[in-house]
Amino acid sequence: MPIYAAPTKDMQFILHDVLKASESDVPGYEELDRDFTGAVLEEAGKLATEVLLPLNAVGDQQGCTLENGVVRTPDGFKAAFEAIKEGGWTALDCDPDYGGQGLPYLMNTAAMEPFVSANMAFNMYQGLTHGAYSAIYVHGSDEQKARYLPKMTTCDWTGTMNLTEPHCGTDLGLMRTKAEPQADGSYKITGQKIFISAGDHDLSDNVIHLVLAKITGGPEGIKGVSLFIVPKFMVNDDGTLGDRNGVSVGKIEEKMGIHGNATCVMNYDAATGFLLGEEHKGMRAMFTMMNEARLGVGLQGYAQSEIAYQNAVAYAKDRLQGRAVTGAENPDGPADPLIVHPDIRRNLMDQKAFTEGARAFTYWGAHLIDRAHRLGDKDADGLISLMTPVIKGFQTDKGFEMAVNAQQVYGGHGYIEEWGMSQYARDARIAMIYEGANGIQALDLVGRKLAQDGGKHVMAFFAMIKDFIGENKGKDEGIDRDFLEPLKAASKDLQAAGMYFMQNGMKNPNNALAGSYDFMHLFGHVCLGYMWSRMAIAAKAALDGGASDVAFYETKLATGRYYMARQLPATVMHLRRIETGAETVMALTAEQF
Amino acid sequence: MPIYAAPTKDMQFILHDVLKASESDVPGYEELDRDFTGAVLEEAGKLATEVLLPLNAVGDQQGCTLENGVVRTPDGFKAAFEAIKEGGWTALDCDPDYGGQGLPYLMNTAAMEPFVSANMAFNMYQGLTHGAYSAIYVHGSDEQKARYLPKMTTCDWTGTMNLTEPHCGTDLGLMRTKAEPQADGSYKITGQKIFISAGDHDLSDNVIHLVLAKITGGPEGIKGVSLFIVPKFMVNDDGTLGDRNGVSVGKIEEKMGIHGNATCVMNYDAATGFLLGEEHKGMRAMFTMMNEARLGVGLQGYAQSEIAYQNAVAYAKDRLQGRAVTGAENPDGPADPLIVHPDIRRNLMDQKAFTEGARAFTYWGAHLIDRAHRLGDKDADGLISLMTPVIKGFQTDKGFEMAVNAQQVYGGHGYIEEWGMSQYARDARIAMIYEGANGIQALDLVGRKLAQDGGKHVMAFFAMIKDFIGENKGKDEGIDRDFLEPLKAASKDLQAAGMYFMQNGMKNPNNALAGSYDFMHLFGHVCLGYMWSRMAIAAKAALDGGASDVAFYETKLATGRYYMARQLPATVMHLRRIETGAETVMALTAEQF
Repeated sequence: MPIYAAPTKDMQFILHDVLKASESDVPGYEELDRDFTGAVLEEAGKLATEVLLPLNAVGDQQGCTLENGVVRTPDGFKAAFEAIKEGGWTALDCDPDYGGQGLPYLMNTAAMEPFVSANMAFNMYQGLTHGAYSAIYVHGSDEQKARYLPKMTTCDWTGTMNLTEPHCGTDLGLMRTKAEPQADGSYKITGQKIFISAGDHDLSDNVIHLVLAKITGGPEGIKGVSLFIVPKFMVNDDGTLGDRNGVSVGKIEEKMGIHGNATCVMNYDAATGFLLGEEHKGMRAMFTMMNEARLGVGLQGYAQSEIAYQNAVAYAKDRLQGRAVTGAENPDGPADPLIVHPDIRRNLMDQKAFTEGARAFTYWGAHLIDRAHRLGDKDADGLISLMTPVIKGFQTDKGFEMAVNAQQVYGGHGYIEEWGMSQYARDARIAMIYEGANGIQALDLVGRKLAQDGGKHVMAFFAMIKDFIGENKGKDEGIDRDFLEPLKAASKDLQAAGMYFMQNGMKNPNNALAGSYDFMHLFGHVCLGYMWSRMAIAAKAALDGGASDVAFYETKLATGRYYMARQLPATVMHLRRIETGAETVMALTAEQF
Repeated sequence: MPIYAAPTKDMQFILHDVLKASESDVPGYEELDRDFTGAVLEEAGKLATEVLLPLNAVGDQQGCTLENGVVRTPDGFKAAFEAIKEGGWTALDCDPDYGGQGLPYLMNTAAMEPFVSANMAFNMYQGLTHGAYSAIYVHGSDEQKARYLPKMTTCDWTGTMNLTEPHCGTDLGLMRTKAEPQADGSYKITGQKIFISAGDHDLSDNVIHLVLAKITGGPEGIKGVSLFIVPKFMVNDDGTLGDRNGVSVGKIEEKMGIHGNATCVMNYDAATGFLLGEEHKGMRAMFTMMNEARLGVGLQGYAQSEIAYQNAVAYAKDRLQGRAVTGAENPDGPADPLIVHPDIRRNLMDQKAFTEGARAFTYWGAHLIDRAHRLGDKDADGLISLMTPVIKGFQTDKGFEMAVNAQQVYGGHGYIEEWGMSQYARDARIAMIYEGANGIQALDLVGRKLAQDGGKHVMAFFAMIKDFIGENKGKDEGIDRDFLEPLKAASKDLQAAGMYFMQNGMKNPNNALAGSYDFMHLFGHVCLGYMWSRMAIAAKAALDGGASDVAFYETKLATGRYYMARQLPATVMHLRRIETGAETVMALTAEQF
């Protein structure tokens, strides 16, 4: 039976020791004192462990079923969904005008992690709703907001995002779904959408689909795409539900993982839709909340790594196999626990160091989003736009890798579904694909974000790292040697890569794009190196200040040293690859593959 | 519908242009001329594509079932198994005295690849039999050989290997299965074995289990383990089948992949067993054929990568999405094919360069095994012993990684089972675990093989690389720059890592073991760099010699350049990690995890 306990101590450390949330000038952060966030996180963790965790394997094994047009979720999902709703967990950062609690996005991000760790497929039902809520919140008319948002805040109605069609995912300009204007100002939506997560199910009274479609007669390609609200059941003016709309589930996909979430083919057959935002500005409307959505997926990456790690540690302490090479550590037992073996430790340390680093990076990203939204901080907005593809791409690649590594600790048992480790890897795999496949994240980073606003944000990033090192160096020999020096070297590698792109991408853009994936990972390592340096300094300060939980802070420092020594050197490899440019990458004709 | 075509041209290139098989002094190699091997490989490829490939998804979806003690394989497996048997594919390198064809192991290795690519789970039924055949062949009495081998050569009877028990896998000294000596010289075997691939099924008339057990009253631990032949049905002196033996299937495991193979819990309840080899020398007997078995698993790694790559290429050429950044390449179509995009190419080139390099490495390994067995070449035996953990560990890690990368090319469709890409990744995952988990391979490499015979074999490896570079450098500027110089640098990294272990492992063995996994990968990259250099020189020679298939050889050179430029720099990262030693890896107490 898999275990999980929310890492609340680590969450609190990042919120308070590192980010010093409640001292921030961001409106709403004054509420985020240690006691408050601690209570919220404890409660979220309790719900995750007691209610969601036991349903994770159930969801994987049963999956969702479609019978006579009705989608059923796995046993227990409905009751668990009610528990999530009753606890107000669907509305932490929603607008109080629509029933939300108005908390910062940072608080919402932190609170969601336990749910995602304990049951990623389940949490997607509310996660998608949150995305749809946000799009309507930002782009909807007052009437639309009043009609839909109160019920979506509570998840009495859930939401979906409909982008992909069978022949197009990334390249949405090829889209075929049509919107025919009607005399009453509504549209008739006709077409097929695929890969619709939480597309239909039995957890809510209504499903509010957000659908991209082309208004007939509009511009060709991506410039003719608009966004529509298409409810499963029409909503009457008094808020009651009316007729069933012309939308139906074609089938539920059989997937590698996240079986508990119904990934649907949705058929729109002259379904009534309502324009959300402006005509032909659908992509803009859909992507308004992209930074949050992608950060949420980056969180899925490390959240799966977290639960996989917790189980791998438990197994490594419990399973007796072999003897420590330096002498028996469990001499009275038949063998030593796995955790005495250096290679098992290397594996566990990789997981631990990544997961904690990624958590800090994600919180920092959420904090920047709050600064952008609540303070109108343009620099924060630019910085998070730059880093969003890194959070999404790097963290989901690594999160999957770490889930696979955790599975490896179990040996043969890791391959047997009964033990649960396979599911973490299979579930984590999707995060590398959806919300923009990771190759697209790399393209976004190198092809768009680097040069955004004249390269201002990446320059600001480097200046920030430089200032950080400057402010902190020379205070502690260990911090300098173990953290600031490696960070400086890694940051230099990143700058060299950026310089290579500037100098060679002008001649041939493929010289930059061929290195985009490596650049995304190089950037990710520098960000985690930066977060680990911040965490180390915070841990050191706590120890110097006489903090009582000495073991926690010392563990933090040791884990950080591991990351800097063992993971950060990847920057050298990525830079080397990048500097070989496009030549070998593009050498073959298509026929030569 | 997944595609597959055996890469016979590449196989022939390695056999003849690179290894120059038929010119070798190894007995039996004189048969391996280009026409003969070509005919064998074409035929194997045809069978794989026509018979095994269509059953791959069937096996994955249906799995094996256990009803009333009877295991059923998926639809079509029985007929396909008959086709494999009729073609003589189960006996290519078996002894002609027992009905085999007596071909070199190299030929068998090359011919197996298409079967493994097309249907890994299916091929395990004969693969395991081959392992059991080999153990009986080497350790059996004449009577045992006569009784079992003819039927195992043809796979009329299949075989299994029974090592693992619920509480012990790697540490077999903890084993509890007992063997009680009987008056007639046989033993009564009692205990439970788990993870028994092909443990029972409906493909053969009998299953010959090789079971490790402890003879009562024997030495404690691993020194008291013996190997037994335990047939499912007793075999009468006239070769007919007698009573059912006391062995039964407890259950079939639900696994992440290789569903088409029945992974069984086997219960031995006073089953009659016959000692194979000497008392208490069971581990030695079981591991006699370890190099071959592990090389076979290393082959699984790249064979899954191969089929995943072929499908990814087909999809990348077919799927239209976006435009090349350097200008439309399919201007009359709605979009360009994926293959125009640099990051898609990076991904495909990674797969292609790994797979072809690993194929060459594996063939070279098989050739060394032939030298050891057929020529009694002790140096070859030492070298392949050294490299076996690298072939197994590095190639299965990378093979899985490449299958995952191939899946990524499909975007969302890669996650949907219908498209088949998920299965390659799920199936490939097991190869990192079984036949000694990859952490154990790394331990074997660094903890045992490096120092074997006074470090003679690793010194011979370095001398071989040095001599190879010396013999070939200065002949062609391009070869020097693109291949020999990077190989020299990578080899230097490997030597530096070895030196680090020597100097620091004496002080504390953990300094070596903490770097063992990185060392295994570093070694793998150097081996693939060496193979790519050999292939490049062979391709260059063919072009210089006026070979007609210019495109093939030029593709080979370009792919090699990619590997050297883009993959080989990983050696720098691995060396850096290794040189940080055990300190950060071992810093935490077990409680601090």
